[in-house]
Amino acid sequence: MKKYVYFFNEGKANMKTILGGKGAGLAEMTRIGLPVPQGFTISTEACIEYYRNGTRYPEGLEEQIKDKLQQLEKISKKKLGDPKNPLLVSVRSGAAISMPGMMDTVLNLGLNNFTIQGIIEITKNERFAYDSYRRFIQMFGNVVLGIEHDKFEIILEEVKKELKVKLDPEIEGEGLKKLLERYKKLIKKEIGKDFPQDPELQLKMAIDAVFNSWNNKRAITYRKINKIPDDLGTAVSVQEMVFGNMGDNSGTGVGFTRNPSTGEKEYYGEYLLNAQGEDVVAGIRTPMPLSNLKNDLPKLYQELIKVIQLLEKNYQDVQDFEFTIEKGKLYLLQTRTAKRTAQAAVKIAVDMVEEKIISKEEAILRVEPNQLNQLLHKRIDPNAKIKVIAKGLPASPGAAYGKVIFTADEAEQLGKEKEPVILVRTETTPDDIHGMVEAQGVLTSRGGMTSHAAVVARGMGKACVAGCSVLSINAKKETISVNNITIKKGEFITIDGGSGEVFLGKVPTIDPEMSEEFKILLSWSNEKKRLGVYANADTPEDALKARELGAEGIGLTRTEHMFMAQDRLPIVQEMIMADNKKNREEALKKLLPIQKGDFIGIFKAMEGLPVIIRLLDPPLHEFLPNLEDILIEVTTLRLKEKDIKELNEKEKLLEKVTSLHEINPMLGLRGCRLGLLYPEIYNMQVQAIIEAAIELTKKGIKVKPEIMIPLISHINELKPICRDVRKIADEKIKLAGIKLNYKVGTMIELPRAALTADKIAEEAEFFSFGTNDLTQTTFGISRDDAEGKFLLKYVDDHILEDNPFEVLDQEGVGKLVELGTSLGRKTRPDLEVGICGEHGGEPRSVEFCHSVGLNYVSCSPFRVPIARLAAAQAAIKEKNLKCGKK
Amino acid sequence: MKKYVYFFNEGKANMKTILGGKGAGLAEMTRIGLPVPQGFTISTEACIEYYRNGTRYPEGLEEQIKDKLQQLEKISKKKLGDPKNPLLVSVRSGAAISMPGMMDTVLNLGLNNFTIQGIIEITKNERFAYDSYRRFIQMFGNVVLGIEHDKFEIILEEVKKELKVKLDPEIEGEGLKKLLERYKKLIKKEIGKDFPQDPELQLKMAIDAVFNSWNNKRAITYRKINKIPDDLGTAVSVQEMVFGNMGDNSGTGVGFTRNPSTGEKEYYGEYLLNAQGEDVVAGIRTPMPLSNLKNDLPKLYQELIKVIQLLEKNYQDVQDFEFTIEKGKLYLLQTRTAKRTAQAAVKIAVDMVEEKIISKEEAILRVEPNQLNQLLHKRIDPNAKIKVIAKGLPASPGAAYGKVIFTADEAEQLGKEKEPVILVRTETTPDDIHGMVEAQGVLTSRGGMTSHAAVVARGMGKACVAGCSVLSINAKKETISVNNITIKKGEFITIDGGSGEVFLGKVPTIDPEMSEEFKILLSWSNEKKRLGVYANADTPEDALKARELGAEGIGLTRTEHMFMAQDRLPIVQEMIMADNKKNREEALKKLLPIQKGDFIGIFKAMEGLPVIIRLLDPPLHEFLPNLEDILIEVTTLRLKEKDIKELNEKEKLLEKVTSLHEINPMLGLRGCRLGLLYPEIYNMQVQAIIEAAIELTKKGIKVKPEIMIPLISHINELKPICRDVRKIADEKIKLAGIKLNYKVGTMIELPRAALTADKIAEEAEFFSFGTNDLTQTTFGISRDDAEGKFLLKYVDDHILEDNPFEVLDQEGVGKLVELGTSLGRKTRPDLEVGICGEHGGEPRSVEFCHSVGLNYVSCSPFRVPIARLAAAQAAIKEKNLKCGKK
Repeated sequence: MKKYVYFFNEGKANMKTILGGKGAGLAEMTRIGLPVPQGFTISTEACIEYYRNGTRYPEGLEEQIKDKLQQLEKISKKKLGDPKNPLLVSVRSGAAISMPGMMDTVLNLGLNNFTIQGIIEITKNERFAYDSYRRFIQMFGNVVLGIEHDKFEIILEEVKKELKVKLDPEIEGEGLKKLLERYKKLIKKEIGKDFPQDPELQLKMAIDAVFNSWNNKRAITYRKINKIPDDLGTAVSVQEMVFGNMGDNSGTGVGFTRNPSTGEKEYYGEYLLNAQGEDVVAGIRTPMPLSNLKNDLPKLYQELIKVIQLLEKNYQDVQDFEFTIEKGKLYLLQTRTAKRTAQAAVKIAVDMVEEKIISKEEAILRVEPNQLNQLLHKRIDPNAKIKVIAKGLPASPGAAYGKVIFTADEAEQLGKEKEPVILVRTETTPDDIHGMVEAQGVLTSRGGMTSHAAVVARGMGKACVAGCSVLSINAKKETISVNNITIKKGEFITIDGGSGEVFLGKVPTIDPEMSEEFKILLSWSNEKKRLGVYANADTPEDALKARELGAEGIGLTRTEHMFMAQDRLPIVQEMIMADNKKNREEALKKLLPIQKGDFIGIFKAMEGLPVIIRLLDPPLHEFLPNLEDILIEVTTLRLKEKDIKELNEKEKLLEKVTSLHEINPMLGLRGCRLGLLYPEIYNMQVQAIIEAAIELTKKGIKVKPEIMIPLISHINELKPICRDVRKIADEKIKLAGIKLNYKVGTMIELPRAALTADKIAEEAEFFSFGTNDLTQTTFGISRDDAEGKFLLKYVDDHILEDNPFEVLDQEGVGKLVELGTSLGRKTRPDLEVGICGEHGGEPRSVEFCHSVGLNYVSCSPFRVPIARLAAAQAAIKEKNLKCGKK
Repeated sequence: MKKYVYFFNEGKANMKTILGGKGAGLAEMTRIGLPVPQGFTISTEACIEYYRNGTRYPEGLEEQIKDKLQQLEKISKKKLGDPKNPLLVSVRSGAAISMPGMMDTVLNLGLNNFTIQGIIEITKNERFAYDSYRRFIQMFGNVVLGIEHDKFEIILEEVKKELKVKLDPEIEGEGLKKLLERYKKLIKKEIGKDFPQDPELQLKMAIDAVFNSWNNKRAITYRKINKIPDDLGTAVSVQEMVFGNMGDNSGTGVGFTRNPSTGEKEYYGEYLLNAQGEDVVAGIRTPMPLSNLKNDLPKLYQELIKVIQLLEKNYQDVQDFEFTIEKGKLYLLQTRTAKRTAQAAVKIAVDMVEEKIISKEEAILRVEPNQLNQLLHKRIDPNAKIKVIAKGLPASPGAAYGKVIFTADEAEQLGKEKEPVILVRTETTPDDIHGMVEAQGVLTSRGGMTSHAAVVARGMGKACVAGCSVLSINAKKETISVNNITIKKGEFITIDGGSGEVFLGKVPTIDPEMSEEFKILLSWSNEKKRLGVYANADTPEDALKARELGAEGIGLTRTEHMFMAQDRLPIVQEMIMADNKKNREEALKKLLPIQKGDFIGIFKAMEGLPVIIRLLDPPLHEFLPNLEDILIEVTTLRLKEKDIKELNEKEKLLEKVTSLHEINPMLGLRGCRLGLLYPEIYNMQVQAIIEAAIELTKKGIKVKPEIMIPLISHINELKPICRDVRKIADEKIKLAGIKLNYKVGTMIELPRAALTADKIAEEAEFFSFGTNDLTQTTFGISRDDAEGKFLLKYVDDHILEDNPFEVLDQEGVGKLVELGTSLGRKTRPDLEVGICGEHGGEPRSVEFCHSVGLNYVSCSPFRVPIARLAAAQAAIKEKNLKCGKK
């Protein structure tokens, strides 16, 4: 028969999968000799079987529980339900992957109208006994019987009122008895039955409740957010109760072996004397810092220090533990790897290497790359005078100030004019994305951590405070009201997406600075990683930032962003409206020096490093007004029958916009197709690139330009463009009389390019996978259209595990990346291959890129450190796998 | 040194690639003992080298020509430039693939002011000699020196006027001398030099001119249309002249070994006595049918019959040959495989099997599948009231009506606007081809069955009436006059290219029916082919037609076409405008019986054969008005400030249209994505399909429904839909108490589906490659946007060899088809795989589908015979390849 139940001394730390984190911790602490109240753990496998059987126990489970319970009774010398000497137990959930607070726990189980007498006898403490019984009924009533928590609280408040006391501990014996009776009545009323008096039935019901809590709504949501599989199941630990509320030589607390907030090596924690664990969490009494225990119970403090040292030595990582002191005796109730802030994670990892506890590789693996985000964004200047006017959810980290703006259109407009903007909306929709892009931050009054605003802002690395429900947002009047303050459109506010706080006015922020440990960790990452990490940057500022954050090159410069700038757009429009090649070339001539200036700036910033520049990619209509807008304008002008001159102009514009209009612009006249139709555009750009490079080379600045052709589907598209590029470049270089190496390559962003990469590599000296577009065409999904309409629903419904625009779809798109890489290298073994889609800064995607042998990933500047760490982790994991390590 | 020049006796029929069709024919005829004026052929390889060297001769070519010329002089016992006994030669182009009339020819080369005396002496015919010289100068002047043909014609007309004669042959010796002088003057004026007198220089210049004519505009256009590679080059044959214009026992003609129009086994051809070849082509004198030669020159007629028999026996195919009779002696000048109408091709192929000349396999390979189109096109309804206004030559079968248009440019323009057009010209030239492509038919007043109009129209499968000389065509006034009737530009006429008749107005046409031979050939195809041939059909009528044409199933029924019908659209719109699921289901309930009726009709038509029905695919906004239109309406209504009720309604519609509007609808909310969002739509369709199938099954009609889910990119999309389909179907079938097999499968039309086909085959019982959409996503090209904007230019510029929406891109899209098929069959070895894109009826694509092992292709009903033949050819070619046959 399968073994489903393990006594604590039968397990150890590495049995998390079947014992859950909690069970494995209890077993491990038992194993290394720490004082642990004894008990047993029902395995996750039992839970899985329970669900498989339609929530019925698998064969043998009941017997095994009975068996282990007997063993516990023997060791504890108590007996469940024995009115003289009753055994009380806790029943706790514990999954392999920690889901704090998501599932249920029952304490003091075993109490009933008879065993309470035994407890009174043994403890000589009637108040304690009744209080324990009261807590048990309340918890059991809520967790096992499903009665709302509030209903118990209301009764509790009533009784306190009647007794004229304020705090729970002030309720004395008679008050507690009264409370107990009313609780029992409530239960009878709610479930139509008496509170179960049989401790074995209590135990069975509690175990069932814990199993069932695996699939409560909270837990399911948590798993979805944290991408924890639904089929792991939870273990259930049944443990003898110890009590921290048996007088002033009792107590309870939580501790960390180091400070989980800063990472400092200090004993950190809180405790309460004469209290049970829930009192610490409940926040009714303010716990004392751990250091106070030195005075309160000096002997126990010393014991605890030894426990801390033993725990960290044993686990080689910072532990988060719970303890209880029962009448001067210390018990450990739980230990687990401590959650920590990004700052702490980095410091601890680096410190532990210096303390020779772990290796550099282990240190690198200890930090979750995405967490670094926290260290890379602006934060409120700690010296600033601040006035918090509201608090919402900390939806996306970073601090930002800007003018309050209520529509996405206006936010976009101001943002493009370089005005700082905070976009304020009741909630955002996909229609607001263009405004969010240009805003410094986003503030909403509705929606949670997974609301549209939160998800999108995190993706963009923008500050976001979501669900700030105290705000009254009046979008029509364009005001925010909160606590008698009214904020009008255009006034400044500041938000802190890390804390959820909102401030009036411009609060000074400071740019993130990297701690010494952060730099050390990243330098170790560089030692270990194989992948290059480049950045996507369209301006010299971005390039400088990227370089500062460790970018080893620019993997994507989008030249169209240069075209969009205020001072260029009119010239670009002139170029587009030109009726013939000559006029088009006139306009391009004006753009040439401007483009050249752009490239000079970027090349300078990246001196000595490669800079990959993509020639114009988007369809031309993106530089003209929107068809619907101009259509309304023209229709209106026509009906008014005046402003003939304006009408004529607009009609001409409408004609152009209509002629450029496309049903599916994503699949239309863009990228190299434009370059082939109007070679003069690419020629101007190439001229600007090469002239900029020559100018700097002459000044002794080392420049490595790489020219990238977008949207190639067939080698024959690439050939004539490459020929032109090389002709222009070679002539200019020859004329300048200098030596300048440059490369010509292509984006691989269409399935056909990946499928025929062997052919394409005949011309292309490098490949850069544009996984954004490649994902769109491989899935046949337009990101613009899909995210709001069905893609997020797909993720919610588990049709897709991840949004493929965030996490690279390895099964489909990844197959093309792998195929394209291997085909390309078949033709050109030294082919440089990278990725410049948004996936380039996403840790799992980076790991994939490493595994298929790309040369580099390229991501937004602020994701560079994340990519560096992820790349190092990928290399270390690969090495460990080869060595058979786990 | 490489051999570039071959004497006729050094070659044979299978050396077409290097000798060109003409050169190989002359060599072969020499080899089998036919009377051929001797000469030599300069290989296509020489031409290719000529272009590679920047239009200079490759090393050794000049010497080899000199060498072979000497050999020719030896055999002919004449000498080039010898004033007593001059050798005269023709210099003709000849590519491996015939390009009739596209390249240049020079005759009578070797004549000059001295050798003409020799010719006079030898022939004792001054008129002949001067006329030959005159023709030579005119041809040389035009072809080699590049002087416009018209300039010579004007002089010719002048002289005729002065001499008061009407026809060329009426010009006598002195007149010819006058003419010669004026021609020479013209040349001096045009090129600034005298007409070259040195025959060796003449020869060199003529050879160059033929080489150069490979890349003249006409030739390039012809190759583009006929998809002939540009790098084959032309051969040049230099051959001793024989003269058909040396009196009434001389003559010239063309012949076919069978009738190339009907395929009848009869001697067919035309000749002129005392004439040169160009006279037959020029159409000045009307040639006599070959049968007349029996009376004119009975001995030669008998000789010719023997030649015909020998030729067909040798080539085992119908030959098109040119002959000249010089003073009673027959010479063969050219033979080539005869072009033929589709009707003739089929009849000849079938007849030759019955005559045991060729095998069934060879017969099948003899017919170009695309040509069958001609047999599948319209003819005049025999019951129509018709008024014949003129009769010309039945130059290319098929009936067509359209607006009378006089220029190719205008025909092209209107044709592209989908206006039916009949292009009317005195005669067509290669400059008219773009107009012919877009016209429904072509009508000329001059030229015979071998005229440009006739040859080209037959190639295109267009209706053509040629040489309709009763018509007075005034291209300037844009009118046709005939028997007091005047037809103006834009008025309708009808032509019957099968009878040569021209009718006033639009005459009703009917669809073609198949000849006995056609049926036989297709039945042989069925014996040989391995691929199934299904049809795409959305109505019972289409299904019946398809079955009649041999469809073995329906590969694609597009249910949205049913939604578009007049009586359904309002209900569909009601369904879309519904605010909630309940109202949506109300509307769907009304659609259910209508859909059921559709399926009953199709199932009946296809009794016993599989019918694959695709569930709703297009985005819902396709069923609503266009956004721009409704936007203009609403803007107008808003400004008018009345019709408030209408405005409100339109606003509501606008809101819906806007909410459904997509930036890239092709990649948006459609296909299975709709099915997942609104399961009630698919459920209704499945219900309709299964209820229809049950109803017929109960009546004893065998039904094989297959339900196809569109736009799957991930197996997880397919799973819930398949589950619903099977649930509904199984319940209904069980309730009906009958046995009914059905299948559930999917379109593979997105790259990701092909890449993960192994996963998808876990659910799908069949695959159907939707190569239209698969081409769009694989290339990242929206067909709607691209064809006008850049795709046709891509084909023109040879960036793509074919429009990938017409001919399947085997290298890219085909790789996905192959991969998807093999992955799918790995999971499900008996997976049924087909293709239902437009490529399913394109012969090269069919061959590809055969080669990758698909089960069937599905195409439009009228392409079914083409696909059957193509499938048989594919199977035969594969077999031949295995046996090492060519």
